[in-house]
Amino acid sequence: MFIDNLIEKIKKLDNPTVAGLDPKLEYIPSYILNKAFKEFGETELGAAKAILEFNKGLLDALLDVVPAVKPQLAYYEMYGIEGLKAMKETVSYAKTKGFEVILDAKRNDIGTTAEAYSTAFLGKTKIGSTEKSMFEGDALTVSPYFGIDGVQPFISDCEANGKGIFILVKTSNKSSGQLQDLKTEAGTTIYEVMGSYVNEWGKTTIGKYGYSSVGAVVGATYPEQCSKLREIMKTAYFLVPGYGAQGGGAKDVVPAFNKDGLGAIVNASRSIMCAYKSAKYSDKYCEEAYAEAARAEAFRMKDDINSAIK
Amino acid sequence: MFIDNLIEKIKKLDNPTVAGLDPKLEYIPSYILNKAFKEFGETELGAAKAILEFNKGLLDALLDVVPAVKPQLAYYEMYGIEGLKAMKETVSYAKTKGFEVILDAKRNDIGTTAEAYSTAFLGKTKIGSTEKSMFEGDALTVSPYFGIDGVQPFISDCEANGKGIFILVKTSNKSSGQLQDLKTEAGTTIYEVMGSYVNEWGKTTIGKYGYSSVGAVVGATYPEQCSKLREIMKTAYFLVPGYGAQGGGAKDVVPAFNKDGLGAIVNASRSIMCAYKSAKYSDKYCEEAYAEAARAEAFRMKDDINSAIK
Repeated sequence: MFIDNLIEKIKKLDNPTVAGLDPKLEYIPSYILNKAFKEFGETELGAAKAILEFNKGLLDALLDVVPAVKPQLAYYEMYGIEGLKAMKETVSYAKTKGFEVILDAKRNDIGTTAEAYSTAFLGKTKIGSTEKSMFEGDALTVSPYFGIDGVQPFISDCEANGKGIFILVKTSNKSSGQLQDLKTEAGTTIYEVMGSYVNEWGKTTIGKYGYSSVGAVVGATYPEQCSKLREIMKTAYFLVPGYGAQGGGAKDVVPAFNKDGLGAIVNASRSIMCAYKSAKYSDKYCEEAYAEAARAEAFRMKDDINSAIK
Repeated sequence: MFIDNLIEKIKKLDNPTVAGLDPKLEYIPSYILNKAFKEFGETELGAAKAILEFNKGLLDALLDVVPAVKPQLAYYEMYGIEGLKAMKETVSYAKTKGFEVILDAKRNDIGTTAEAYSTAFLGKTKIGSTEKSMFEGDALTVSPYFGIDGVQPFISDCEANGKGIFILVKTSNKSSGQLQDLKTEAGTTIYEVMGSYVNEWGKTTIGKYGYSSVGAVVGATYPEQCSKLREIMKTAYFLVPGYGAQGGGAKDVVPAFNKDGLGAIVNASRSIMCAYKSAKYSDKYCEEAYAEAARAEAFRMKDDINSAIK
């Protein structure tokens, strides 16, 4: 099941982090982009070919460092059909290289439609007498505005196919409090209420390490709220965005972890993908060495977080 | 701008409804499906070809009846890349036939990522020195869990490109109250709070009929809540799911409308797409006449709703 596989990879690599794959074109080294544009034109095909090459280089460089990757679907959808093909190939490549693949798509809808989304990203589509997976990841991010009947189809695929989900609870962005921090009549905040739901919804998918395949998204930018949520959701794994480029530091992610050193996986996207451009690495790594720079940053992040939580 | 175009089409056809295009394979007449499977195999390509033919037949039959269509992206994503190509071609075809196209995708994320989604569905993607639209609809549904900075990029495309959005406020499903009906300390429900936000967020995109291109999703299955929301969001257009197969009747959608007869567009998907299968029409229309059955049901729905609101 997803959560056991994830935890085993985290333990094996001693690294509770996930590398986001949000390939904006400005992140891609110009030698890759120019080569793709030269061969395929300044088109979505050219963009998609560049994205795929960039991603593959990152995946090759990170495979013995980082247990999981998280493609953010928006950055593929914005390059249309070709972008989505690059996403699909990135997922396949990442899986052959042994990564857990978390598709970051924040899908949500009423039950019957959520079922279709879940089929697309966590299941297999029936076509006539055949069945085939389309964009099959190991896990998917899910938005909870509809309540349980919009979430249940995803949970059912967690149960039936050993997949995982991470449900938005407290997001890392500035305005997340506009809805999530509202206090209810009972004096609890919305993010606490959602945390309680997620804890409840995860009870059918608890694996051998005591964690559920139904996890939560909890931003590193709100350590105090994270701390409260850790109390509420004892068995949920936290997917923690907001470290690095979004402003969260290693000390900010500490409350997401339990005393067993488990319970959270911290995401970084830009700081890894664009390491070769940063002041920290640009002296040492040229554009062509973007993957090695990403690898160096992934190691630095691993050490940074491990030293804070251990 | 979107909202003015939509209202003008609604007035011209005297029809405040939108036809959902959620093409599950079991909705498609077997003669279309079998032909596609025979030519392209029981594959996602076969499925996508069948979906596209089915959709085109519906669009041809509805173009002088219904002002807008709403493809639900989940049902295309579940057929993978080929499914998304069918979605893209459906959108293009619908636009050439004069429909307003509302992409039902419930996208949501932090600001930078919401920008990428908005570019994919409401904007144009920059690639090198070129700019191209990918899945360009006229409007998009948006989920509000992140608060304003996850919504602002979509609003910016409404302002800059004359597009529209419909933000989830009170959804039609059974468990929508789990989050949306919670009462805050101040005694207002979450759906009322979200309604106030949407009303505020829509102020920069009000068109010549006094309505904003920033609308709201409000389910027909909750007429009482809809009535309160109509008071709170005076200038928001309501996209109203839940009529027909989901259980809402014409009287249930009345509170979504203002006294000017405007303010709402009522969606039906299954009841139109599958009219040829229903007891009401199956005697009169064979499979091959699925589009005429859909047309008859679209006229019936128009009359049903108009007689209730007028």
